[in-house]
Amino acid sequence: MDLSPIKVEIYRERVAKLQEMLRSKGLQAFLILTHENYRYFIGDLRHQPRAIIPAEGEPILIIFTQERKEVSLVTWVKDIRTYNHVGEMMKAVHDYFADEKFEKVAVEYLFSVPYFLLDRFKRTNPQVEMVNGNDLFFALRMIKSPEEIARIEKASNIADAALKKALEVLRDNLDRGLTENELAAEVEYFMRKEGAESTSFPTFINSGIRAYSLHGNATAKTIEADDVIVINLGPKVEGYGSNLARTVVVGKATQEQKQLYEIQQEAQRLVLEALRPGIKINQLDQIVKKHYAAHDLGKYYLGGFSHSLGLAFEETPMPTIFPRDSVIEVRENMVLALGHPILSVSGRGAARLEDTVHVTADGFRPLTKSIKELVEI
Amino acid sequence: MDLSPIKVEIYRERVAKLQEMLRSKGLQAFLILTHENYRYFIGDLRHQPRAIIPAEGEPILIIFTQERKEVSLVTWVKDIRTYNHVGEMMKAVHDYFADEKFEKVAVEYLFSVPYFLLDRFKRTNPQVEMVNGNDLFFALRMIKSPEEIARIEKASNIADAALKKALEVLRDNLDRGLTENELAAEVEYFMRKEGAESTSFPTFINSGIRAYSLHGNATAKTIEADDVIVINLGPKVEGYGSNLARTVVVGKATQEQKQLYEIQQEAQRLVLEALRPGIKINQLDQIVKKHYAAHDLGKYYLGGFSHSLGLAFEETPMPTIFPRDSVIEVRENMVLALGHPILSVSGRGAARLEDTVHVTADGFRPLTKSIKELVEI
Repeated sequence: MDLSPIKVEIYRERVAKLQEMLRSKGLQAFLILTHENYRYFIGDLRHQPRAIIPAEGEPILIIFTQERKEVSLVTWVKDIRTYNHVGEMMKAVHDYFADEKFEKVAVEYLFSVPYFLLDRFKRTNPQVEMVNGNDLFFALRMIKSPEEIARIEKASNIADAALKKALEVLRDNLDRGLTENELAAEVEYFMRKEGAESTSFPTFINSGIRAYSLHGNATAKTIEADDVIVINLGPKVEGYGSNLARTVVVGKATQEQKQLYEIQQEAQRLVLEALRPGIKINQLDQIVKKHYAAHDLGKYYLGGFSHSLGLAFEETPMPTIFPRDSVIEVRENMVLALGHPILSVSGRGAARLEDTVHVTADGFRPLTKSIKELVEI
Repeated sequence: MDLSPIKVEIYRERVAKLQEMLRSKGLQAFLILTHENYRYFIGDLRHQPRAIIPAEGEPILIIFTQERKEVSLVTWVKDIRTYNHVGEMMKAVHDYFADEKFEKVAVEYLFSVPYFLLDRFKRTNPQVEMVNGNDLFFALRMIKSPEEIARIEKASNIADAALKKALEVLRDNLDRGLTENELAAEVEYFMRKEGAESTSFPTFINSGIRAYSLHGNATAKTIEADDVIVINLGPKVEGYGSNLARTVVVGKATQEQKQLYEIQQEAQRLVLEALRPGIKINQLDQIVKKHYAAHDLGKYYLGGFSHSLGLAFEETPMPTIFPRDSVIEVRENMVLALGHPILSVSGRGAARLEDTVHVTADGFRPLTKSIKELVEI
């Protein structure tokens, strides 16, 4: 699948839409400190992304002096301010905001914005009120363009292939004592060979007693006979991630494990059946809640079954992080991950299956397409 | 190199030392939200690390209900509070701090603490003043124990081997059009095969015009004839990272490139010559500043030549992020990376060489040991 580059006009349009929102909210600028928004509005990737989009006029980039030539080649933005060290970078932002027109500026309240950094910007610019700008950029990022969906679809294809690869590696290496870390290394290498630029989260390989984890990672633990393994893959293509999780059993699954998995699989099926524009995120959650309750599993319901994804591994709507996102309505061209929370019952079993789907006018189109059933290997 | 596990007594000692500092500063607790401190004081790795060390008494962990059994097996901490979703996790912290004895609590001001998360803890616990606790835990983490140094040394050996591997991959694949991403994928896979659990930062492969970058990453750019390539590797072993950077030229280096590299190599040599307990971080910087000035390169001096590392890729002293760290004195058993900033002169050349060293009673012991010279391939 060849991806055509995203055109400059698209970035200009995104900036223009954001500027309209800034003006309508009485905000004079948006300060970008994350890779996600730098990529979304500017179209480039810097290790330390720093940009300002004023409510009127052209965006400005703040970059290391010796990167100016490269940046001017790769970006459409003309106003480039430079710095040599962090102090000068802070000063560049300060000097820009020194103009008295800047009273209220939107900033990002995201996982990827460090407390000390935003705190320092606030202290350096005490005359500027820095307000949560998530609603603005997520209003745009929530609805994906065809270019964005193509990238998530390519990432989803890689995730599907990588799951197959993971099962192969498991089958071929179980006897010699494969660790979670070794499996993660093989799968991540495979994903990059297939065209992923990286992953949007560290690969989860949660095996045995670790399978009950809410989240996860990969450790030096050896994968053993009878282990349940929860695998979660998040390959990224040009910034856009996919999300695929499956549950695997080494050997034969117990009856309890099978039952739990089937209940979780049915939960996802029920949510997919209901998924269409107009339904609210918390209505999707209610379906899961009722379904768990009908199976006497009410207390294992964790909420937040569905979340959006794209440039970030979780983005609005992301009800487990921002509870008020629960009331957001599903809309056409959202991309959602369904099956975020695990059905985990310590000592009995653990079941996760999470898929990435593209919401269409009358339902959805699956982007990840791996086998849904519990895998025994 | 086999690493013996870190003993429970070591974690208890670290906690006891921190508690002593908390009491001496009139603080009632330390709230841990980062992997680094969770690993340092608790000895475990959770996707979302949440722990509280009170000034008196035992630490508490706040974990997902279904992880209780696993956590009780892997940790020495007895007081485990559980939650099912983020709201309950916030409430667990709130309930703990509801005791009126908690007036001032230390928190982490680190890259890995998200603004919105700490902000939410502040809002949820308005009666508690949350103060910057970096000085406390860094007073401990700054000086490494033999167990920690052994891990950084193993990571350093992996970094050295990975640099060789990178050069091999470059030599073998240049003709077919190798991209930066492809090279990064090969090198990261190799490092994990050699025993790295992951990397403490995304591998930098900055080639051609990208070599001038202050930081970097790896992109879809093809590596071409005459490219200067800056490679920076950060493998991690049981949480502890190493830092190794080198500069490579595809083909023959220009005279200017050679000169710049020699100047940078000499800068590192001069710093290493001066490095011993008692010298201040900014005195090391002054050596580089003078040396650049003597070569008419004063304006390319970026500061922050040396920084500490360990559980984080940069930790105190880290003068480029926290300028006041500049006045810290080097001490025995610090582990430092020397050569952090690039000597970058757009259009002329780019030179970086960074090594990890262990500060000894009368100087230093190199941990990374790769060839220092500019490599032409």
